[in-house]
Amino acid sequence: MTYATNDYVIPPTMKAWVLGGPNELSLADKPVPEPRAAEVLVRIDAIAVCATDLEIISHGVPASIEGELPFHKNFTPGHEYMGTVVKLGPGVDEFAPGDRVAVEVHAGCGRCPRCREGMYTSCVNYGFHSKGHRANGFTTDGGFAEYAINHVNTMVHIPDHVTDEEATLIVTAGTAMYGLDVMGGIIAGEGVVVTGPGPIGLMGVGVAKALGADPVILTGTRERRLDMGRRLGADHTINVRNEDPVAAVARITGGKGVQYVLECSGAPGALDEAGRMVNRGGRICLAAFPSEKVPVDLAHLVRNNIYVFGIRGEGKSATHRAAALIAQKRFDAKLIHTHTFPLGEVPTAIRYARERIEDAIKVVVKMRNA
Amino acid sequence: MTYATNDYVIPPTMKAWVLGGPNELSLADKPVPEPRAAEVLVRIDAIAVCATDLEIISHGVPASIEGELPFHKNFTPGHEYMGTVVKLGPGVDEFAPGDRVAVEVHAGCGRCPRCREGMYTSCVNYGFHSKGHRANGFTTDGGFAEYAINHVNTMVHIPDHVTDEEATLIVTAGTAMYGLDVMGGIIAGEGVVVTGPGPIGLMGVGVAKALGADPVILTGTRERRLDMGRRLGADHTINVRNEDPVAAVARITGGKGVQYVLECSGAPGALDEAGRMVNRGGRICLAAFPSEKVPVDLAHLVRNNIYVFGIRGEGKSATHRAAALIAQKRFDAKLIHTHTFPLGEVPTAIRYARERIEDAIKVVVKMRNA
Amino acid sequence: MTYATNDYVIPPTMKAWVLGGPNELSLADKPVPEPRAAEVLVRIDAIAVCATDLEIISHGVPASIEGELPFHKNFTPGHEYMGTVVKLGPGVDEFAPGDRVAVEVHAGCGRCPRCREGMYTSCVNYGFHSKGHRANGFTTDGGFAEYAINHVNTMVHIPDHVTDEEATLIVTAGTAMYGLDVMGGIIAGEGVVVTGPGPIGLMGVGVAKALGADPVILTGTRERRLDMGRRLGADHTINVRNEDPVAAVARITGGKGVQYVLECSGAPGALDEAGRMVNRGGRICLAAFPSEKVPVDLAHLVRNNIYVFGIRGEGKSATHRAAALIAQKRFDAKLIHTHTFPLGEVPTAIRYARERIEDAIKVVVKMRNA
Amino acid sequence: MTYATNDYVIPPTMKAWVLGGPNELSLADKPVPEPRAAEVLVRIDAIAVCATDLEIISHGVPASIEGELPFHKNFTPGHEYMGTVVKLGPGVDEFAPGDRVAVEVHAGCGRCPRCREGMYTSCVNYGFHSKGHRANGFTTDGGFAEYAINHVNTMVHIPDHVTDEEATLIVTAGTAMYGLDVMGGIIAGEGVVVTGPGPIGLMGVGVAKALGADPVILTGTRERRLDMGRRLGADHTINVRNEDPVAAVARITGGKGVQYVLECSGAPGALDEAGRMVNRGGRICLAAFPSEKVPVDLAHLVRNNIYVFGIRGEGKSATHRAAALIAQKRFDAKLIHTHTFPLGEVPTAIRYARERIEDAIKVVVKMRNA
Repeated sequence: MTYATNDYVIPPTMKAWVLGGPNELSLADKPVPEPRAAEVLVRIDAIAVCATDLEIISHGVPASIEGELPFHKNFTPGHEYMGTVVKLGPGVDEFAPGDRVAVEVHAGCGRCPRCREGMYTSCVNYGFHSKGHRANGFTTDGGFAEYAINHVNTMVHIPDHVTDEEATLIVTAGTAMYGLDVMGGIIAGEGVVVTGPGPIGLMGVGVAKALGADPVILTGTRERRLDMGRRLGADHTINVRNEDPVAAVARITGGKGVQYVLECSGAPGALDEAGRMVNRGGRICLAAFPSEKVPVDLAHLVRNNIYVFGIRGEGKSATHRAAALIAQKRFDAKLIHTHTFPLGEVPTAIRYARERIEDAIKVVVKMRNA
Repeated sequence: MTYATNDYVIPPTMKAWVLGGPNELSLADKPVPEPRAAEVLVRIDAIAVCATDLEIISHGVPASIEGELPFHKNFTPGHEYMGTVVKLGPGVDEFAPGDRVAVEVHAGCGRCPRCREGMYTSCVNYGFHSKGHRANGFTTDGGFAEYAINHVNTMVHIPDHVTDEEATLIVTAGTAMYGLDVMGGIIAGEGVVVTGPGPIGLMGVGVAKALGADPVILTGTRERRLDMGRRLGADHTINVRNEDPVAAVARITGGKGVQYVLECSGAPGALDEAGRMVNRGGRICLAAFPSEKVPVDLAHLVRNNIYVFGIRGEGKSATHRAAALIAQKRFDAKLIHTHTFPLGEVPTAIRYARERIEDAIKVVVKMRNA
Repeated sequence: MTYATNDYVIPPTMKAWVLGGPNELSLADKPVPEPRAAEVLVRIDAIAVCATDLEIISHGVPASIEGELPFHKNFTPGHEYMGTVVKLGPGVDEFAPGDRVAVEVHAGCGRCPRCREGMYTSCVNYGFHSKGHRANGFTTDGGFAEYAINHVNTMVHIPDHVTDEEATLIVTAGTAMYGLDVMGGIIAGEGVVVTGPGPIGLMGVGVAKALGADPVILTGTRERRLDMGRRLGADHTINVRNEDPVAAVARITGGKGVQYVLECSGAPGALDEAGRMVNRGGRICLAAFPSEKVPVDLAHLVRNNIYVFGIRGEGKSATHRAAALIAQKRFDAKLIHTHTFPLGEVPTAIRYARERIEDAIKVVVKMRNA
Repeated sequence: MTYATNDYVIPPTMKAWVLGGPNELSLADKPVPEPRAAEVLVRIDAIAVCATDLEIISHGVPASIEGELPFHKNFTPGHEYMGTVVKLGPGVDEFAPGDRVAVEVHAGCGRCPRCREGMYTSCVNYGFHSKGHRANGFTTDGGFAEYAINHVNTMVHIPDHVTDEEATLIVTAGTAMYGLDVMGGIIAGEGVVVTGPGPIGLMGVGVAKALGADPVILTGTRERRLDMGRRLGADHTINVRNEDPVAAVARITGGKGVQYVLECSGAPGALDEAGRMVNRGGRICLAAFPSEKVPVDLAHLVRNNIYVFGIRGEGKSATHRAAALIAQKRFDAKLIHTHTFPLGEVPTAIRYARERIEDAIKVVVKMRNA
C-alpha cells in the first residue's frame, strides 16, 4: 500500500443540510470538522436516502443522546454515504488520502461490556459522543453534507469498479448480512425466506443467494419489487396479495418449511407468519418492526424452540462482508438504485423516497457532476 | 465399571395409570415393555408431577403424534421420573442392571436435520415413534407406572447420596439449564433475572447462582416462593404485587439492567417487561408462555438488538449438567419437593399439584415404601 | 414429493471388490445386503478413489473396529461414491427408489456424547457397528461394489444436471467445507490460504471462493495443480519451489496475513508455516497430516492466540452445503476429475491414483456404460 | 453508585522500579502519569510476581513494540496488580476515586479487526501505544511502582472482603477462565484435566470446579502443589513421577477420557499426552508452552478431530468472571499466595519467585504496611 501525499485542499467551511424542527431541512454553511485520533475526514461523493432518515427528519434524533433535544441545532442527517478520504487524524495509517470508502453507521464506545465483546452496534453508551460513541446521521453529524468525520472502524475500502451509487448500498447489504450472521451465518443449501422487498429485504435476497442458500424465497405485495428480487437471486417469490405466504412456503418446501426467516416488512403479523414458515428449531431475524405493539403467539415460539433475533444496524463487521460480495459481483446491488439528485435537491430526493415516487427504491444524492 | 448380573425378575405385566378421555385416569394392567437396541427397561422408583402432565391429562397428548388421537387408548403420562435399570436392550453397555438413573424426555429420531446438529428436542420427526423419536409421557408411554422404556440417550447416572425424590427434579433443573445455555451459557458475574417462581424458575435460580451469575434476581407474587428462591441462591427477590419489576431491576443494577432474563411465568406482559430489564444486546429465554396471543413491543427488541429464545424441553444434554450440579450439592433442589404419595394415589397427587394445595410445588409419587 | 413404486429388481448377489491382505484386492460375489430401519440400499453408479482408500488397501482398516483384524475377510473398501436408491428399509420416507444420491462417510452411533451434540464424525463409538456406527469403506462395507447400504443421514439428493462423476466429488468438497466451518464459517471478505493442491485442497479453494473469501491463496509445487486452483477460484497461487510461502502470503496481503489456513498438504513444516501466514487470533484447520511426529513451534501458537482444528471427515452436514454449492454451479468441481475406469478395472484405477499416472487427480470408477 | 470527591493528593513524582538491561532493576523517581480519556490513575496497593515478569526482566519486553528496544529506558514491569482509583481521565464515570480495583493486562487498540470482534488480547496492533493499545507491564509501564495508568476496560471492581493479596490473583484466574471459555465454556459435569500446578493451573482447577466440571484432574510432580490442587477443588491428582498421566486419566475416567485439557505445564510432551487424555472431538487449551520446538503427533489430532487453542492472556472479559467467582468465594484463591514483601524489596520478591524459595508460588509485593 502506498500512502499518497495529503494534498487535498480542505476549505474552512462546507455546505451541509441541517435539521431545525420537524421536517425543517435547510442548507447551511458549517465548519469542516477536524479528524481526531483514529478518525479521518471523508469528502462525501454520494449518499442514499434511508427510511430511517425520513423518521429522523420528521421526529428528530433518538431522545437518548446526551444533552440534546430530539431536534438539536445544526444536526446533519444521512448515514448511507461513501466518499474519498481527504485528511487523516493523528496515528491513522489504515487509510490514506485518496482512498475511496463506504461507511457503516456505528462506532461503538469501545469501553462498555457490549463493545468489549464485539457487539458495537449494541453499545451501552449509544449516543454518548463524549465516551467515544458515534452513529453518524443518528447521534453525530451525517452525510447530507460535503464532508464528514468517520472513525476508522466505520469504513471499508471499495474498488474502482464499484460505482459511487453502488457503494452507498453497502451498509444496507451489511444490515441484511448481519441478520443472516446472527441467525447462524452458515446457510449454503438452507432455505431462507425474506419477508418484505424493501432495500434491506432485496439486499437480503442478494446476500442469501450469494452465500448459497437454497431456496431463497421473497414475499411482498408489489410485482415490480418481487421481479427485482428474482433478478437479485430469489428462487421463488410470493405475492401475499394472491397467496397466503405460510401456505406458499409449505408448498415450495414440500411441507418442510425453511430454517431461516429474515423479516424486513414490519407488518403486524409478520413474526407469527415467520414462526409458521420455519420448522422446529427455526430462526427468525427481525430487521424491521411495526410501530405499535402487535399480538404475538409466544406459545408457538416456545413449543417449536424458535429463536428470534432483533437486530440494530450492521454489526459484527458485516459491512465488510457485504462489501466483499459486492466487489466480487455476487449480486447486482445497483438494481435497487432508482433515482439520482444533486446535493442541492436533497428535499426532492427525500420526497421521492418518502412517497415512493416512480416506485423509487434507493434514491441517491450525488455530490459532483450532477 | 462392573456390570452386575442381570438378575432382576421382570413380571409379564405391570400396574400403570392410563388416560381414557379428558381427566379420565385409571389404574390398569399393561404388559411390561421390552427394550430394543439402545434402550433399557427402567423400574420406576419415583416420579414428580409436572404442569405439563396436567395439560395432557386434561387435553390429551399433542395432536401431532402419528396415527393417534389426542386421547389415545392406554397412554401412560408422566415424564419426571427416576428409577433403576433392570434390563438392557441388545448392545447396551452404557448402563447396567442396578444403575440408578434419572431421565430426560426427548430421544430425537437421530436422522432429521435438527437431530443431526444436536438439537434433538427440536426433532423434526417429533411424535414419529416409527422413525425413532420418543418423548416419554408425551408421545410414548411415560412414568406413572411400574416400568418404562428409555433410550440410553435419555438417562443420566445418579449417585447414592441423591435421593429418589431429588432425582425426579433433575429434568426440571435441566430445562432451566438449557435456557441459560441457549442464551450463551457463560454467565459468571453476569446479572440474571428469573421471572416466575414455579419449579423451572426456582431451579433456574439454583443453576444460575451455581454457575456464578451475579446478581440473580427472582420475581414473583408469593412470598413463600420468593423466600424459597432466596434459599436457592437468589441475591434479590421482587414481589411484583409491591413493586414494578422493571423499576426494581433498574434499582438493583444501578440502572444498567441485566444481560439475561429467564422467563418462567407465562404472564402476558412478561416478554415486554423482560425487554426492559435487559440492556442493549440482552438476551431473553422463554421457558413459559401465555395461552393466548399477547401484545408485544417488537420495535423495542429490534432497536435494542435483543435476542429471544423459545425453548422446548431440556436440550443439548443440559440434564447431564444439571445432574452434575445437583450431585455436587451446588444448590438444594430438594427444597421444591413438598409432597409425596404412593402410586395408588396418583389422582390425589395430581389434585395437589393442580390446585397447589398446601402451596404444593413439586408433588412426588413414590413407588415403594410409601 | 412423489414416492415412486419400488420396482427395482434386486439380485441376490453382487460383484464386489474385497480385500484379503495388504494390497490383495479381488472381485468376489457377495450377497446384496438388506437395508434396516433408517437405511436404504444404494445401487452404486460411480465411485472415486481417495488417498485414504490407498492407505486402507495397503494397511487394512483402522485397528479400532470391534472384533476385526485390520484385514478382515470380505471387506469392501471405497467411500466416495454416488448412486441410485433402489430399496428402502422400514420406515424410510426421506428418499424414494429412483432418487440419485451422493453419500458421506460417517453415520454416527447417535447415542454417544459426541453424536448427541451433532459431532457425528467424532463418534465415540467409531467402529462399533453393533451400536449403530457406520463408516462405509472404513469400518463397514464400501462402494467398490454394485450395491451398498447407507443410513439416511449419509445421503444427499443430487439434481439431474450434476453428472455421476461430479457427484462423487461432493464428499471431498464436504470435507473442505467442514474445515472452513469449524474455523468459523463466515469467511466472505476474509483471506484464506489453502496449502496443498490435492483433491481436498482444490475443493477447498472452490468452496472458499464460492463463499466470498478474498483473497483465496493456494500453495503447491506443481504448476498444473496450481493452474487448476486458479480455475477453481484461487486469486493467487504460490509455487513453494520458487518462493517461500510465508513471505509470499505476507507480500500478497500487504503484511497483514490471512485469518484462515486450510492445511491440506500434510507437509512436515506446514503447521509452523501456517502459524506465520495468519495474523494474531488466526485459525488453522488441519485436514491432512504428516505420517510421523514433526517439530512444532507451540510457543508461536500460544503467543499469537492461534487455534488449530484437526478435522476428521465431513462433519456437521457439510456435505449438504457442498452439494448445494455444486448444484448451484458455484465452482467447477468436475475439473479435478481426470480419469474413468469400469468396475472391472478397479486395480488399474487405484494404480493411476496411487502413482498419479498422467497427473491423475480424481480417478473415478463408473459402473455402467464404461 | 455515589461518586466520591476526588480528594486524593497526587504527588508529582513516584517511586518505580525500572529496567535498564538484562536483570538490571533499579528503584527510580518517575513523574506520576496523567490519565487520558477512558483512563484512570491507579494507586497500586499490591502486585504479584508472574513468571512472565521474570522473562521480561531477563530478556526485555517483546521486540514488537513500536520504536523501542527490548530493554527500553525507564520501563516499569509488573502486571498482576490491584489498587485504588485516585484520579479519573476526562469522561470517565465507570469508576470513582476510592474504588478498589484489580486489573487485567490488555487494552486492545479498539480499531483492528480482532478488537472489532472482541478478541482484544489478539489485537493486531499489539505494542502500538500510538494506536491505543496498552499491555501494562509488557509494552506500557506496569505495576512495580506507586501508580499506574489503566484503561477503564482493564479494571474490575473488587469487594471489601477480598484482600489486596487475593485481588492480585484475579488476572491469573482470568487467564485460566479464558482457557476454559475458548474450549467451549459450558463444562458442568464434563471431565477436565489441568496439566501443571503452577499458578494458572491451580487457578484453573479452582475455576473448573467452581463451574461444576467433574472430574477435575490435576497432574504435576510436586506433592505440595498437588495437595494445594485438591484443596482448590481437584477431584483427583496424578503425580507424573509415579504414574503415566495418560494411563491415570484413562483409569479415573473408566477409559472414556475427558473432554477438556487445560495445558499449563509447558512440558515438551504435554500436547501429545493431552491428545491422549481426551476422547474423540476433545479440546485442548495451551496456556503454556515449551521454549523450543517439540515433536507433535499431528496425525492423532486430525484422526480424532481434536481442537487445540493457543491462548494469550485473559481475553473475552474472563477476568470479570474470575473476579465474580472469587468474590463469591467459590474457591480459595488465597491458597496460592505464599510470600509478601514491601515495594523496596522487589528484587528479593523476584528472587523468591524465580528460585521458588520455600516452594514459593505467588509472591506478592505490598505497598503499604508491609
